[in-house]
Amino acid sequence: MTSETTTGRRGSYAKGVAKREAILDAALPVFGQSGFHGASLREIARQCGVSHQSLQHYFATKEDLLLAVLRRRDERLRRHFGDASGMRLGELLDLAEYNVEVPGVIQLFNTASAESTSPEHPAHDYYADFYEQIVESTSRYLAVAERRGLLAPGFTAETAARVVLAVQDGLQLQWLYDRDAVRVAEAMRLVIATIVTVPLAELDELSEG
Amino acid sequence: MTSETTTGRRGSYAKGVAKREAILDAALPVFGQSGFHGASLREIARQCGVSHQSLQHYFATKEDLLLAVLRRRDERLRRHFGDASGMRLGELLDLAEYNVEVPGVIQLFNTASAESTSPEHPAHDYYADFYEQIVESTSRYLAVAERRGLLAPGFTAETAARVVLAVQDGLQLQWLYDRDAVRVAEAMRLVIATIVTVPLAELDELSEG
Repeated sequence: MTSETTTGRRGSYAKGVAKREAILDAALPVFGQSGFHGASLREIARQCGVSHQSLQHYFATKEDLLLAVLRRRDERLRRHFGDASGMRLGELLDLAEYNVEVPGVIQLFNTASAESTSPEHPAHDYYADFYEQIVESTSRYLAVAERRGLLAPGFTAETAARVVLAVQDGLQLQWLYDRDAVRVAEAMRLVIATIVTVPLAELDELSEG
Repeated sequence: MTSETTTGRRGSYAKGVAKREAILDAALPVFGQSGFHGASLREIARQCGVSHQSLQHYFATKEDLLLAVLRRRDERLRRHFGDASGMRLGELLDLAEYNVEVPGVIQLFNTASAESTSPEHPAHDYYADFYEQIVESTSRYLAVAERRGLLAPGFTAETAARVVLAVQDGLQLQWLYDRDAVRVAEAMRLVIATIVTVPLAELDELSEG
């Protein structure tokens, strides 16, 4: 209350936004390391220097906090889900390169997507929907390649999309065990080049045209 | 004690083995659904109809029980790690086909391998070692293909091994979200056929020869 009077409503609002972001930053590695069941709101509050009560002002439950962390993390991907020409493979590759620079992000994704396969998990619907949409939008991007016979024998647009996404998820898991041995984006590029028989720049043009 | 006198040592031993197996059977889906942190020994004991105390006679701690479940689950793969000619891709494909028939096995593997990326997790060393060995033995199998130029452009034996294992892990995760849409072994076969430019039967002969 005091701070609202001193700094005015605007300053207070900005402070609130900053505190919310600080909580999300602190929560990400905790959920990544301990999973949803093992993560503690008290520990997250301690790490960003707010009281447990203050944290609950922003996120009433651990479920709310986890979902907010996931939404912010996946925002860059999710904004392509509605693109008419679908999710470009180039964007996926850029993101794979970016992810390895941000500690905790890959671990959060791996832990959360694995434990959320259980239907009772609070992020189950979030991830079921996330996979459905990313497969759908990547398949839409690859549809033109399927129509023009530019995929390796036996591949449909959907199989190709699922395989590329699987390579990313699986290599990120291996990377968490051995960061020196695994180059996620590099291996994804090799796989894409064996499945899609034209350069991606050409596919980008076809999918827009 | 009473049962030992009644059934004799042999019967008692066989009973003990059967009870141990029953506990492992009950524990597998619980660890798969709730993860290590969320799983409860009491719940597992309840599900296989033994007392909490009796369960602890077989597995003193939750860590011991998880590791025993993982070891039994991975046994079929692990016995190929020492093969001089390495882990055959055909064996991986057979196992991928088998896994989707055993409820809970894929979910256990996904949850445990993801949460174990955290160095404090009791199965961290188990999985770090598991991935190192399976990558190593699959690479050994593929070495002859690399030497003879039978891999797609840019692939080494190790990259090919890592990609095939990643496709399996990643597709199994997608399968847990949408069991009707994902055919794990089928997609793995397509990927292998684009990376390895000869039929697997031919590669088996080369790697043995």
